[in-house]
Amino acid sequence: LNSANNGMNGNGVHHVSVRAHVSVNPAKLKSHRQRWNVRPSEMSKKTLNPIRAIVDGMKLTPNPEKPMIALSIGDPTVFGNLPTDDTVLQAMKEAIDSHKYNGYAPSVGYQKSREAVSNFYSCPEAPLEGKDVILTSGCSQAIELAISVLCNPGDNILVPRPGFSLYKTLAVSMGIQVKHYNLLPEKSWEIDLQHLESLIDDKTACLIVNNPSNPCGSVFTKDHQHKILAVASRNCIPILVDEIYGDMVFPGCDFQPLAPLSSDVPILSCGGLAKRWLVPGWRMGWILIHDRNDIFGTGIREGLIKLSQRILGPCTVVQGALESILNDTPPEFYQGTISFLKSNSEICFSELSTVPGLNPVMPTGAMYIMVGIEMEHFPDFQNDVEFTERLVTEQSVFCLPATAFEYPNFFRIVVTVPEEMMIEACIRIREFCARHYRPRSQDSHELDQ
Amino acid sequence: LNSANNGMNGNGVHHVSVRAHVSVNPAKLKSHRQRWNVRPSEMSKKTLNPIRAIVDGMKLTPNPEKPMIALSIGDPTVFGNLPTDDTVLQAMKEAIDSHKYNGYAPSVGYQKSREAVSNFYSCPEAPLEGKDVILTSGCSQAIELAISVLCNPGDNILVPRPGFSLYKTLAVSMGIQVKHYNLLPEKSWEIDLQHLESLIDDKTACLIVNNPSNPCGSVFTKDHQHKILAVASRNCIPILVDEIYGDMVFPGCDFQPLAPLSSDVPILSCGGLAKRWLVPGWRMGWILIHDRNDIFGTGIREGLIKLSQRILGPCTVVQGALESILNDTPPEFYQGTISFLKSNSEICFSELSTVPGLNPVMPTGAMYIMVGIEMEHFPDFQNDVEFTERLVTEQSVFCLPATAFEYPNFFRIVVTVPEEMMIEACIRIREFCARHYRPRSQDSHELDQ
Ligand SMILES: Cc1ncc(COP(=O)(O)O)c(C=O)c1O
Ligand SMILES: Cc1ncc(COP(=O)(O)O)c(C=O)c1O
Repeated sequence: LNSANNGMNGNGVHHVSVRAHVSVNPAKLKSHRQRWNVRPSEMSKKTLNPIRAIVDGMKLTPNPEKPMIALSIGDPTVFGNLPTDDTVLQAMKEAIDSHKYNGYAPSVGYQKSREAVSNFYSCPEAPLEGKDVILTSGCSQAIELAISVLCNPGDNILVPRPGFSLYKTLAVSMGIQVKHYNLLPEKSWEIDLQHLESLIDDKTACLIVNNPSNPCGSVFTKDHQHKILAVASRNCIPILVDEIYGDMVFPGCDFQPLAPLSSDVPILSCGGLAKRWLVPGWRMGWILIHDRNDIFGTGIREGLIKLSQRILGPCTVVQGALESILNDTPPEFYQGTISFLKSNSEICFSELSTVPGLNPVMPTGAMYIMVGIEMEHFPDFQNDVEFTERLVTEQSVFCLPATAFEYPNFFRIVVTVPEEMMIEACIRIREFCARHYRPRSQDSHELDQ
Repeated sequence: LNSANNGMNGNGVHHVSVRAHVSVNPAKLKSHRQRWNVRPSEMSKKTLNPIRAIVDGMKLTPNPEKPMIALSIGDPTVFGNLPTDDTVLQAMKEAIDSHKYNGYAPSVGYQKSREAVSNFYSCPEAPLEGKDVILTSGCSQAIELAISVLCNPGDNILVPRPGFSLYKTLAVSMGIQVKHYNLLPEKSWEIDLQHLESLIDDKTACLIVNNPSNPCGSVFTKDHQHKILAVASRNCIPILVDEIYGDMVFPGCDFQPLAPLSSDVPILSCGGLAKRWLVPGWRMGWILIHDRNDIFGTGIREGLIKLSQRILGPCTVVQGALESILNDTPPEFYQGTISFLKSNSEICFSELSTVPGLNPVMPTGAMYIMVGIEMEHFPDFQNDVEFTERLVTEQSVFCLPATAFEYPNFFRIVVTVPEEMMIEACIRIREFCARHYRPRSQDSHELDQ
């Protein structure tokens, strides 16, 4: 018996119609393209990362006499002073040795791993089951899937200013309009609720809340979150809450997840292992679906499942390790990270508070401090970008200008660097500011002469 | 000094305009939405997985007297008979123990890992460097990025029929039209080149070639690939070649990668660890950028980099292990897999070749066999879906109906199952066909009476 099946191609139709063309020279067919013209798609061109755009445009030549100190990188692992816990690494090695986690998992994750996450975050006011968890390739993909399932091109979303740039990057690339609502530094970066509500229109598909905040290091109170939920509830807007820094709050402050505070607003809570477990490279994130009022219904759940099938979920080894990572990591590990972050934040805050022209805002969580620049006292610089650029040239200290977070005249400091570096960086920032600071009265005095 | 910055919010503008609204009751504002109406996006609804759609619609109740044999799952690890090599697992554990791969990698991958891939695939006719490699979350994301960067909504792409369904799933969700070109079973599933060329128009953004093929198990000759390249070249169409089964070809057959055969057609070659290294769950894929004629230029490269920043690349632990996985896995491992696949394919082919009404097409690579069904001899069934459904009900053997690959009247068998299972499955398929086969002459004879 022959392996061919006698010309029958199983659906036959096209086969025949094409044979009729045999004698036509294809080069003569109507719509033949005559020259190469391969251009990147509009979508790829619209995928703009403002941090890259700004940093790539800066002249970052450190002072050769001072070793570089980068306070710019949101990666807690770069200096080696904040290793993950051994339990976490051990869990990975056990997952590998088990030989059980090499095949495909369901695209939303293994049921057992989803249940490990739902058990970890479930609480009486907001119970979660495995089916309410979608595992993703980092919190970034969690955010991508959540925006993708909730929004159509032409819709708009509300995002914080200052805020993490990925929300806008993703939305703009999908043809979704971004409206920024203000955070108020003088109110510990709470949301300007009236501004927020004024932005809502009938094309508003989703409110994005980030708590604790990158870049602010702020943590919302229960009371403030009730007010946010009230806005969402009376305008019938679902919430995407980015809680990747959840539980990373300083002693004395409480982290309150958003979902348990509401029984009507449907919420997609995005999180992951990156920050709290100090393994951002492992790309393990999740979406928790909170929908006690059955607003999302099956549509949004099925939409998320469908979207997850595009790239088939996160690495199975990390999925296999997840249950042990969540359940067995000792409390001292989390506490150790937090007390380090708090202590470094206090050093940085108290140092910079006494620098004329700077206004640091003390954080209560996450791993960042925002520092206001009284630009009128630094006439040498047009803006925060120039300010931070020159800080590199003169002092070899690099902080991200907050223009990268749509918030000019501030810069962001990452507080995960070793303590000595933090102290040295503050000394250099002080020196830099002292050199460039011009008291305003004196300025006008000089102008008068 | 106080942590607040005296009401100055750093960009000030919106702040002021909003304050004016203080006394307006937001519930009375124009475009207030009055009720909840959260619907999944069009994009999520358009993300259709035909395999899921077909399989979910089938009644798959196995015969309780026979244990189930699933010949449907494209995951070589499910039966435990094809473990990955110890070198591969060891490389992962070393990456974990090094403590070097927990932080963020660049979104396109560590330079060292990219170089490991470029060194592995570089050849004199198609030299590759690290910069020509983009690491992705599985070959699936490689395909997603490649389509995303090359195509705009309204464009069309050419995909094989029968073919892997993800191409269409992704394209349709992005508003890209899919045109199927025929593969010819009687010519070992070579492309019907005239049909292919007849489909090209000025909206054709990309030709997708899959070699070796899922679901056909076919491997293109050098000569045939030259002809494919000629079509692309004279019509100025870039190629996305999916070579995830690259080098998984049976002894006596040669795998020829596409890119080294052309110096003018720009090619994105997609691959990954999933199949050859038998770790599909690890989600490690890549794009190799071949552009010796500088057609893609910087635009496509930058587009790919931008797109990679959306979800920040694959798991760093696997990236850290990549160099050792590629360089240290012993040749015997690859050979062992291949000889197993070949032997199982031969068993399956020779068994089914002698079953009246079936026409298996002998594969030369990958891990699949396509089997044609002479539907006219199986009047009990309308189509391949009904045929395979009843095969489950009666014989507890599940094969994917090739309608899932846009190719009715065939079914696909996965040849990674243990040999005894393969033999038992073939016996049951024979029994099933014997029961339902009706010789055509007899049919008409019966009708005559
Ligand atoms: C607020 C916020 N959300 C999400 C992410 C992305 O997390 P992941 O690395 O898990 O994708 C970050 C990373 O810096 C972040 O700051
Ligand atoms: C032809 C083809 N391409 C790509 C893939 C996806 O590979 P990955 O698991 O690396 O995403 C598959 C998986 O079955 C496949 O058959």
